[in-house]
Amino acid sequence: MGVGDVSKRILLGRKLRSSQLGETLLPKRIALPVFASDALSSVAYAPDEVFIMLSLAGASAYVWSWKIGIAVALVMSAVVMSYRQTVHAYPSGGGDYEVATVNLGAMAGTTVASALLVDYVLTVAVSISSGAQYAASAIGALSGHEATFASIMVLVLMAINLRGIRESGTFFAFPTYAFMVAILGMCGFGLLRLATGDLPHVESAGLHIQPDPGYGSSMSTFALLFLLARAFSSGCAALTGVEAISNGVPAFKKPKSKNAATTLLLLGMIAITMMISVIVLAKKMGLKYVDPNQMDRLTLDGKPLPAGYDQHAVIAQIARAVFSDFSPGFYAVVTVTGIILVLAANTAFNGFPVLGSILAQDGYAPRALGSRGDRLAYSNGIVFLAFMAIILIEMFNAETTKLIQLYIVGVFVSFNLSQLGMIRHWTRHLKTETEPSERRRMVRSRAINTVGLTFTAVVLVIVLITKFLAGAWITILAMIIFFLIMRGIRRHYDNVQAELAADEEDKIMPTRVHAIVLVSKLHKPTLRALAFAKATRPNVLEGVYVASDPAATSRLLEEWDERNLGVPLKVLHSPYRELIKPIVDYAMEIKKANPRGVVAVYIPEYVVGRWWEQLLHNQTALRLKGRLLFAPGVMVTSVPYQLRSSQIAREREERELARVRPGDLRRGQVSGGESHKGQIQR
Amino acid sequence: MGVGDVSKRILLGRKLRSSQLGETLLPKRIALPVFASDALSSVAYAPDEVFIMLSLAGASAYVWSWKIGIAVALVMSAVVMSYRQTVHAYPSGGGDYEVATVNLGAMAGTTVASALLVDYVLTVAVSISSGAQYAASAIGALSGHEATFASIMVLVLMAINLRGIRESGTFFAFPTYAFMVAILGMCGFGLLRLATGDLPHVESAGLHIQPDPGYGSSMSTFALLFLLARAFSSGCAALTGVEAISNGVPAFKKPKSKNAATTLLLLGMIAITMMISVIVLAKKMGLKYVDPNQMDRLTLDGKPLPAGYDQHAVIAQIARAVFSDFSPGFYAVVTVTGIILVLAANTAFNGFPVLGSILAQDGYAPRALGSRGDRLAYSNGIVFLAFMAIILIEMFNAETTKLIQLYIVGVFVSFNLSQLGMIRHWTRHLKTETEPSERRRMVRSRAINTVGLTFTAVVLVIVLITKFLAGAWITILAMIIFFLIMRGIRRHYDNVQAELAADEEDKIMPTRVHAIVLVSKLHKPTLRALAFAKATRPNVLEGVYVASDPAATSRLLEEWDERNLGVPLKVLHSPYRELIKPIVDYAMEIKKANPRGVVAVYIPEYVVGRWWEQLLHNQTALRLKGRLLFAPGVMVTSVPYQLRSSQIAREREERELARVRPGDLRRGQVSGGESHKGQIQR
Repeated sequence: MGVGDVSKRILLGRKLRSSQLGETLLPKRIALPVFASDALSSVAYAPDEVFIMLSLAGASAYVWSWKIGIAVALVMSAVVMSYRQTVHAYPSGGGDYEVATVNLGAMAGTTVASALLVDYVLTVAVSISSGAQYAASAIGALSGHEATFASIMVLVLMAINLRGIRESGTFFAFPTYAFMVAILGMCGFGLLRLATGDLPHVESAGLHIQPDPGYGSSMSTFALLFLLARAFSSGCAALTGVEAISNGVPAFKKPKSKNAATTLLLLGMIAITMMISVIVLAKKMGLKYVDPNQMDRLTLDGKPLPAGYDQHAVIAQIARAVFSDFSPGFYAVVTVTGIILVLAANTAFNGFPVLGSILAQDGYAPRALGSRGDRLAYSNGIVFLAFMAIILIEMFNAETTKLIQLYIVGVFVSFNLSQLGMIRHWTRHLKTETEPSERRRMVRSRAINTVGLTFTAVVLVIVLITKFLAGAWITILAMIIFFLIMRGIRRHYDNVQAELAADEEDKIMPTRVHAIVLVSKLHKPTLRALAFAKATRPNVLEGVYVASDPAATSRLLEEWDERNLGVPLKVLHSPYRELIKPIVDYAMEIKKANPRGVVAVYIPEYVVGRWWEQLLHNQTALRLKGRLLFAPGVMVTSVPYQLRSSQIAREREERELARVRPGDLRRGQVSGGESHKGQIQR
Repeated sequence: MGVGDVSKRILLGRKLRSSQLGETLLPKRIALPVFASDALSSVAYAPDEVFIMLSLAGASAYVWSWKIGIAVALVMSAVVMSYRQTVHAYPSGGGDYEVATVNLGAMAGTTVASALLVDYVLTVAVSISSGAQYAASAIGALSGHEATFASIMVLVLMAINLRGIRESGTFFAFPTYAFMVAILGMCGFGLLRLATGDLPHVESAGLHIQPDPGYGSSMSTFALLFLLARAFSSGCAALTGVEAISNGVPAFKKPKSKNAATTLLLLGMIAITMMISVIVLAKKMGLKYVDPNQMDRLTLDGKPLPAGYDQHAVIAQIARAVFSDFSPGFYAVVTVTGIILVLAANTAFNGFPVLGSILAQDGYAPRALGSRGDRLAYSNGIVFLAFMAIILIEMFNAETTKLIQLYIVGVFVSFNLSQLGMIRHWTRHLKTETEPSERRRMVRSRAINTVGLTFTAVVLVIVLITKFLAGAWITILAMIIFFLIMRGIRRHYDNVQAELAADEEDKIMPTRVHAIVLVSKLHKPTLRALAFAKATRPNVLEGVYVASDPAATSRLLEEWDERNLGVPLKVLHSPYRELIKPIVDYAMEIKKANPRGVVAVYIPEYVVGRWWEQLLHNQTALRLKGRLLFAPGVMVTSVPYQLRSSQIAREREERELARVRPGDLRRGQVSGGESHKGQIQR
């Protein structure tokens, strides 16, 4: 293919496609761990929250624990079934945002996007806070420093993601499967010991819980219902992350939707099994668990606990008891739980830019987020996410119990809008569909989504009632702020588009080109710029020199004459060493003298490679270019001259462009290590 | 003057000169306060340091105080006389740096520059720390928080200077004259009361000083000599700032050198009078003054002082006693002293960029510092200065006594090199000068500089011996670091210059121009870029579109055909939404196919005005331009399209360019408020 040949619309796609990024689709066994870490990791804290809420009424209320577990499992089944419909209907990876936008309009879409943005921040805050709790269970020295430890962990995650972590299938597969094996193994072993009548008690079994004043035995039915509602809504934290697969359908192997739906079903079943098992075991093993801020409500033989007593997470307590005489078992469970929580947080770092890029394409986020190459935009997003998470962690002292109050509302807002959207979707399609079997399928799907909506709507109402004052208002406020910012950005882009829309007069050609080449010295870059400018055959061509030192000026003039360049040199005097203004003024003056012409300013630049070299050069050229952009009818041309050291920067840039970006795996844009391996440049 | 007319070398200087900056030269009565604040303000701390050093041997050693004062005065006279020679011989404002560079070579010049850079930092640290001490004298609540107060003051100064403070004659004149009147008035009144036998004692007169172990009555002669040397070298802090006028000769009214020399003489006389008066009065009024870290050496009637006792600065003690029954007098003295100390610190903020600009012109500092318009470079310098000063203040807890140990060595390094340079200067001129009267003048000048060198060399040796371990090593280390950085920058610029030197082959013209116009949409900016590119009549012209979305691509192609632009459109496919790399690769491919041609890339840009709008636009264009600079044989043209809001940015830029920069006054580049007032745009 000749390049000089101006053949129209030649496709260069094929070449790029294979050279830059490997495209590897995920088989189910890899996709499950990639998308499951967020959803499964909530088993590490959701049961704890159920027990904490119930403990307000004393340990006797724990009889409700498995019933609440089943209620949560029911909701989760409904949600999983609903999302199986979504992945079939919207396989493009837009997820809830796309469903809401297409079926309910831009307002609903933006609302979902706001909810998801807030959720990503909370996923990081909650997962890492819970992880810090597990770390403190295993390493006593961390007790009391959870917030600091959690903040540092967030910074570490931020740094790793800024550097560009290579999310790969194996990266997720091992820890996620290890977590499943550990938790299911622990529960299986525990249930076995239960069956043989050999189930030991957990460390907190001997304690007594003082009911919170206002609850306890004399509690009214209404108060009991409210308490159960609170416990239930906290338990619904187990549902967070279930929606992740709906954003990742493009990354699945074909048949994409079917595989995604199967994986989703698998995920739901595993999550429900884990959660119910943990709750049942904990109850059977005599767990006593209260809000860590109300440790004085725990007593031992009527006396308060010693000051140093530390309440360990539910899974940690179960693991310690079940593996009573085998401490590696305990450490293994706690370690994989910690790792899966960190992976869940990392998920947010990967999902955030994916969402950002979709929003950018729709004009709700800065355009730069939409282009994969823009590392700066990505970095800003990652830093923003990390700092928001740290603020929350520090504000709430890394207490999962408090952060949970903020968490669930966002998730359920998007669940609801998404289900509503899906119902509309089916209704719309039913209007045109005539094939009876297809119609039956659609009606069934719509019924599933209706059930889903009913469940999630009930949960959302319960969450809003029970959690609004406890912190959900912060989430809602943050959602409103994100919402307004996104609408504002979109409005701005719309206004700009209107102002830029082409009309007929835009075809008028400028009559003449007046080119000026900026001269600071007579060196290679200047000569090259002069040659390039000459090659464009402008109507007028002159060199322009800003003079502040008479000696240097006369030296330059002599050299200019000697070289016999055939181009006149104009000298602009600037006694106070100003460079920018004289040039801008001169360019504007030329333009004014010839309003239908165009002024072409050629700036010779020499390109260096090391960062400190860049500080030493071209700062003025950069400012001048920025300034000239404001001059109408002036175009600015950089004529670069590459110094030897520029090679360093070129290589750095190339490494940079080839680097993996957070979220690539989720979009099916990165080799998962299975194939195309040779084509990836690290 | 027609602009289209390509008349060679037309001078536009006149117009700029009068439109942009007023040029106002300072009469002596204004120049004195402008350049004196640094030198005079040292009266606020130099006597204190003399008394602190002598106190090591007990109050009996205070008999030496006025003799040390006279020794310092002698050195100061010698230095003043020497600098009077400098301002005559080097009226261009280069000061010590120029003298050393011209006469002793670049190494000496860079050494002086390093010393001056370190000095600017220390001027800020010492002046503000001393000012904080005075503030604590007047406002009891500040006692014990001097370091915090001082750091905040530095930040305030930084902010003011970043904003661009308008240094004007009146800005300095009032406080400086007020300080002179206050101090001289206080001393005069004190001496009057001494003459009438009515001189009261200061607050510390009744105290007793415990000599430091090792000093005291049994001290050896050597120890006494060493003590006196230490006291003397601390007293020499009074000389800092004397050299300022030699950097400011261009700002004086004509005859510049003569006026500068007279002002210098005046300054010396006032400084000496103040210092001697303060020392004599303090001694007569029974001052007892020790290192604030050794307050336990002060006793009252054999008993230690109460814990809350606060030792006030010498001038504060004198003022309180002299104006015994007139507290406004005390407050006036303390207030103007505090103000003059802040002004002295501000002097460093103004001198620093002036030095930076001279160094930049010689290639020892980033070039950008040499251009008045580069606000960023200036800002970096100011922030750097402030942060270094804050580090010192916090490290030494704002204790002037400790900071003084670092201060004087830098000053005297430049004094010495400058005097040595002046001697060489006269010797060199004597070789060619034949006129006897002129020769006599030169011989006399050389003698004065020789005396100056002798004095300053002795002081430098004493300072090095007495202060090296006490902190001067830090200064010397910092000087070495600055020195190495400056040499490194210069070496880099030299290497670049060698690599860029023009040779014959640089006249080769490219044979053809292949122009590509980047297209993202078919809007006004794209149409303008196409029109401009067409106007340059390239050999090949085509639009280039990076396609990642098939729907958008076919929409664009349709529109392109409809518009019938007469330019072919090339589509580069980029399934992963990369923008930069496809374009760069394509440009490089064109270049490779036609090595003697040049590729012109036209980038349509729309220009917005508000900062947040800039975040939303052109980020990709900016990155692409940066990336294309590394592609040899490719020139990059920005074709701006100004949106309505760009007006905001243009106006902001214009305000910015018209703004006063720190140091302008010292270079005679700003209206001092006396004339041209109407021409300055604030």
